[in-house]
Amino acid sequence: MIVSALLTSVGINLGLCVLFFALYSVLRKQPCNLKVYAPRLVAEGRAGQRSHFNIEALLPSAGWVRRAWQPSEDELLNSCGLDGVVFNRIFIFSLRVFSVAAIIGIFVLLPVNYLGDHLRDIDFSDLPNKSLDLFTISNVKDSSNWLWVHFSAAYFITGVVCYLLYAEYKYISNKRIAHFSSSKPQPHHFSILVRDIPSHGRSSLSDTVETFFMDYHPSDYLASTVVCRTSKLRGLITDTENLYRRITHLKSIPSSSQNQSHTGFLGLFRKNGDLMGHYAKKLEDLEQNVRLEQSDISAGREVAPAAFVCFRSRYGAAKALHIRQSTNPTEWVTEHAPEPHDVYWPFFSTSFTQRWISKLVVVVASVLLIVLFLLVVAFVQGLTYLEQLEALLPFLKNILKITVVSQIVTGYLPSLLLHLVASLVPPIMKLFSAMQGYIAISEIEKSACNKMLLFTIWFLFFANVLTGSVTSQFQIFLDPKTIPERLAVAVPAQASFFIAYVVTSWTSLSWELNRTIAFIGDLISRRCSKTNDDDFQIPSIPYHSEIPRVLLFGLLGFTYFLLAPLILPFILVFFCFGYIIYRNQLLNVYQPKYDTGGRFWPIVHNATIFSLILMQIIAVGIFGVKKLPLASSLILPLPVLTLLFNDYCRKRFLPIFHDFSAETLIKKDREDRNDPAMEEFFDKLVTAYRDPALMPIRHSTNSNDHSSPLLSKV
Amino acid sequence: MIVSALLTSVGINLGLCVLFFALYSVLRKQPCNLKVYAPRLVAEGRAGQRSHFNIEALLPSAGWVRRAWQPSEDELLNSCGLDGVVFNRIFIFSLRVFSVAAIIGIFVLLPVNYLGDHLRDIDFSDLPNKSLDLFTISNVKDSSNWLWVHFSAAYFITGVVCYLLYAEYKYISNKRIAHFSSSKPQPHHFSILVRDIPSHGRSSLSDTVETFFMDYHPSDYLASTVVCRTSKLRGLITDTENLYRRITHLKSIPSSSQNQSHTGFLGLFRKNGDLMGHYAKKLEDLEQNVRLEQSDISAGREVAPAAFVCFRSRYGAAKALHIRQSTNPTEWVTEHAPEPHDVYWPFFSTSFTQRWISKLVVVVASVLLIVLFLLVVAFVQGLTYLEQLEALLPFLKNILKITVVSQIVTGYLPSLLLHLVASLVPPIMKLFSAMQGYIAISEIEKSACNKMLLFTIWFLFFANVLTGSVTSQFQIFLDPKTIPERLAVAVPAQASFFIAYVVTSWTSLSWELNRTIAFIGDLISRRCSKTNDDDFQIPSIPYHSEIPRVLLFGLLGFTYFLLAPLILPFILVFFCFGYIIYRNQLLNVYQPKYDTGGRFWPIVHNATIFSLILMQIIAVGIFGVKKLPLASSLILPLPVLTLLFNDYCRKRFLPIFHDFSAETLIKKDREDRNDPAMEEFFDKLVTAYRDPALMPIRHSTNSNDHSSPLLSKV
Repeated sequence: MIVSALLTSVGINLGLCVLFFALYSVLRKQPCNLKVYAPRLVAEGRAGQRSHFNIEALLPSAGWVRRAWQPSEDELLNSCGLDGVVFNRIFIFSLRVFSVAAIIGIFVLLPVNYLGDHLRDIDFSDLPNKSLDLFTISNVKDSSNWLWVHFSAAYFITGVVCYLLYAEYKYISNKRIAHFSSSKPQPHHFSILVRDIPSHGRSSLSDTVETFFMDYHPSDYLASTVVCRTSKLRGLITDTENLYRRITHLKSIPSSSQNQSHTGFLGLFRKNGDLMGHYAKKLEDLEQNVRLEQSDISAGREVAPAAFVCFRSRYGAAKALHIRQSTNPTEWVTEHAPEPHDVYWPFFSTSFTQRWISKLVVVVASVLLIVLFLLVVAFVQGLTYLEQLEALLPFLKNILKITVVSQIVTGYLPSLLLHLVASLVPPIMKLFSAMQGYIAISEIEKSACNKMLLFTIWFLFFANVLTGSVTSQFQIFLDPKTIPERLAVAVPAQASFFIAYVVTSWTSLSWELNRTIAFIGDLISRRCSKTNDDDFQIPSIPYHSEIPRVLLFGLLGFTYFLLAPLILPFILVFFCFGYIIYRNQLLNVYQPKYDTGGRFWPIVHNATIFSLILMQIIAVGIFGVKKLPLASSLILPLPVLTLLFNDYCRKRFLPIFHDFSAETLIKKDREDRNDPAMEEFFDKLVTAYRDPALMPIRHSTNSNDHSSPLLSKV
Repeated sequence: MIVSALLTSVGINLGLCVLFFALYSVLRKQPCNLKVYAPRLVAEGRAGQRSHFNIEALLPSAGWVRRAWQPSEDELLNSCGLDGVVFNRIFIFSLRVFSVAAIIGIFVLLPVNYLGDHLRDIDFSDLPNKSLDLFTISNVKDSSNWLWVHFSAAYFITGVVCYLLYAEYKYISNKRIAHFSSSKPQPHHFSILVRDIPSHGRSSLSDTVETFFMDYHPSDYLASTVVCRTSKLRGLITDTENLYRRITHLKSIPSSSQNQSHTGFLGLFRKNGDLMGHYAKKLEDLEQNVRLEQSDISAGREVAPAAFVCFRSRYGAAKALHIRQSTNPTEWVTEHAPEPHDVYWPFFSTSFTQRWISKLVVVVASVLLIVLFLLVVAFVQGLTYLEQLEALLPFLKNILKITVVSQIVTGYLPSLLLHLVASLVPPIMKLFSAMQGYIAISEIEKSACNKMLLFTIWFLFFANVLTGSVTSQFQIFLDPKTIPERLAVAVPAQASFFIAYVVTSWTSLSWELNRTIAFIGDLISRRCSKTNDDDFQIPSIPYHSEIPRVLLFGLLGFTYFLLAPLILPFILVFFCFGYIIYRNQLLNVYQPKYDTGGRFWPIVHNATIFSLILMQIIAVGIFGVKKLPLASSLILPLPVLTLLFNDYCRKRFLPIFHDFSAETLIKKDREDRNDPAMEEFFDKLVTAYRDPALMPIRHSTNSNDHSSPLLSKV
């Protein structure tokens, strides 16, 4: 790629960004879009509904930036939970790191690269047609002493990153402890999940649980809720809800047609009335079935060998959690209890064989996904080399000769395609994780986040860097000695592709800001049907797709820091945009679905360490390729030191993210001891872990009371 | 190797075994050897000292076999602890497995191998000069259908081994729980080791510990013993003991010379007296120093940031052990407390930097050991190929032409050399483990056992199988697809070497029975000096060297089960001999030094699973090499099933070997609650973990009281 192509790409993307930002600020002000752009505020009743027309509402403004910037971290914590804060800290951390990196990169490394070895006359003529390779390390001559600048930069940036990582880990783990200490009593602090409860023929499962815990934890045990298999019931409830939705939909059609046209749709009308009666009858039957099934389950006929056990103190729950309960290690297995609304109930319904089969299915599906995605990547890579594309599709030859088209195709299209396809993967990964058998939605998303991270690093980075077949990609790992050298050759070659990728990502950020898909969906649904206005859902932020996406740019920044420092300012712009946009979305759009207490941070930390190590390995290779073996050897202690640092962090901070210490728990218990509100809390705790499927269904009373009005209305 | 060479080797070794057994039965009866052959009985006063001469004592007999055979497992448990029982179970398990294997091997596989494909006339003529290869799988023709017999045998033996492994694991874990349940209260059940105690400038370490545990475990906490740095004191005590030993030695010389010769050694005599006085003075000074240092340490000036904390109940100790104590995970780190006499005190004296350096030293030393041993193995391998040896050392050409010599050199010498060199390794491995920083002698030996196992498998098996340089050996693992095939070619080629190795091992077992080195040592010391008869040490069994040695024969049995079933009867003989000999030694010679409660079994289990998998991988390769691809593919599920089985065992049994469940602990605590002896136990518990270096030294009173008699005697 030449400089002018890059500039075209930057121009297009900056233009699009400004356009999208302006569009957002206008759309955001329209009262009809409030549910798309500020669903949280609407739900919390904080959105001022302006009814009168205002010319100001049609002019773009930057007020939203100010409003997203202003809130302090404590306000963010109150509004989005610790997970929101952690997500925000990723941007702060990245901004700090890449500010330092960009300063070194642009003011030290870039001039060294550009000047090469022979301090030639600085020649800026014909800059637009110069290759971007002039700004990369490949422009420096072999065994040049200028490479020691890169060497020092590698040590310096590792030191800076490790210091910042340590500070951030410490900051977040302190936040986590403080968050716990200041939290109100919550059911999941006092509960554990017990699985594989052995069944005795004579007594019921709930009696078995009660006897066991009363025997071994007499002073701590409070109550237990046996988990039921509710897959059948769940199916019935879904049917009921679908039917109910159809009835309300039917109800809405005649009223609208009455309003719009008074001409005789009477034939259809009467038919509609008949259908309505038929549906109402069916709904009543279904609800009867649901109630029967519910009472069946409540009678204890369909129980899974699992129970949520609640204790009188947090320390009591911790004791039961950490000490193996039963002599047989496969019985009475204890686990952390998730928050009540975070429990993934369908999981308990599946049998052991089903779970085993699901796992196999996940493996097969992953393989298919890999193959599918490799084909896409191969195609995208073809686009960056126009000749290949021309050979493949000869009829495009003439079109591709037009400069603008070729610049768009090489500079913009490939990364746009990658962005698009990559956006399809997160839901699939989440599905895979759900099939693996996690008991909490947060756990599923955490696992999906790890999967996505692997996927992102492998397919967006390595697959693009290591061109060639899958087997040749894997073969690189079978010959570990050559990895640094092969990476040192392959990674710089893709510098221009990744610079273009980073630049395109700005636009994808403004898509996020505009919530394009949600906006279009809302538009269509408003045109097509007048559904009930109260019936809208507040989305939650999909951490499992957003965190890996952000971390990828960190990876790119680190790996290209030495090789092509030109990428750094673009990455810095990405993080600036991201910081503002995600703060805005966290405050206005997304509502937290669960609170892991910042347990996503270790993933971020590990990914950053991985990126650092990758940078160092590439540095080893680069100095080898550039025939500076001394530097190549002297850089070897760096990954070792980084791993030692990581090991220390694992020991020092990671346990805090798994569970709280006896010290913390006992202190918190003592605080509560004299709190009169605790009795009330314990009363609620007893029923906190009831399966929502066993709650009386909503439409039941609704349809019982109003079944005649519903029909009479028609 | 040809059949006659094998027979020569079997003959030599059987002859040597019978000779050694007879020698043992005679030597064992001599009262003067009782301390070598039955130190336990002597120490326990159970050895009947016959003073009158008896002709029977000079005739070999088999009474010792009966006496070793008779005791039941409960008697063994009482006498040798659960570890002794586990060691004995290794032989029982192996005997069971290899009885089945030998029956299949000899009566099914061996005929199939010998007959090859073409049911030729069975031809036993000239058997002694036939190659052993006739009995291996290499004699079966390619893609012969007879190979399906081997295929079925692989499935059958895996099933049998897994069943027996499961039964054994279950048996031993039940034994472990029963052993715990029936045990008397023991200090290490009630204690934990706390490390990295943060120091507060104002209060002493013991106060800090006391405050912390009184605060968070008020109902359970009993007492704590701060660990002191006693390296200096330990040095002083060693000096004192050496000096004391020299004095007693000096004391013994004149008295003996007085008895033996009354001629005038007066000049030397007086000199001796002077020396004696000098030493006695020095001893007194040293002891004064020791006492000063002890009081210094007791005053709390030299404390390590660690303490043994004792609790009022086992469950109380478990709570403190399993729940992280401090908010900062690197402080108040808790660990299982070892038995008081099992604590490895020198470890606490080393500083963090020293431990770090030791670890580096261990790494470097391991590398050196590997290089050294590879040289030895290369030399030994050369011996099995006489031509190579002749080329290397041409002057041996004539000697090697003598049949007996060449048979001894190829059949006997290589394995004897290997045995000898391998016996040098265990002490080195133990030293390495001690440097790694384990706090208990049992942990050191367990770690050394694992190291030895790796070493044994790698150097005695793989290094012999995969001839060639180290790098080429490691390269096999870089190309995982070819591993089965390369092993399938390399392993059968070494069959005769390993058959010879197994046969030689019989003799090494009778060395163990005769305690050759200890016997010679005793003989020399008795000749040279008349040391005090009461001053002898009862040895403990070195599990870290014996367990890997025994397991190697299991590995050989499994890997050669399909390839060269001829090895199986020899292995069976080894295990028979081993069973009797080690039972005899456990009952008469070795005294348990510690009681891990059978924690060596998981090592045995894992090693057996590894051997099975290796057998299956080789089977995959063999069927590939023999051009029976269907069998090669159909055997693939076998390792997967074996690994699944292992995974189940890990979940089902392994936790039992780590710690006891709440159920077990609470039951045991309740039993003790009404025991009046508990108060007395708690009184003892408070001082159980005092560093032995801080105890008043033995010679102190000794020399104080007797210093004048000591001199006056002279």
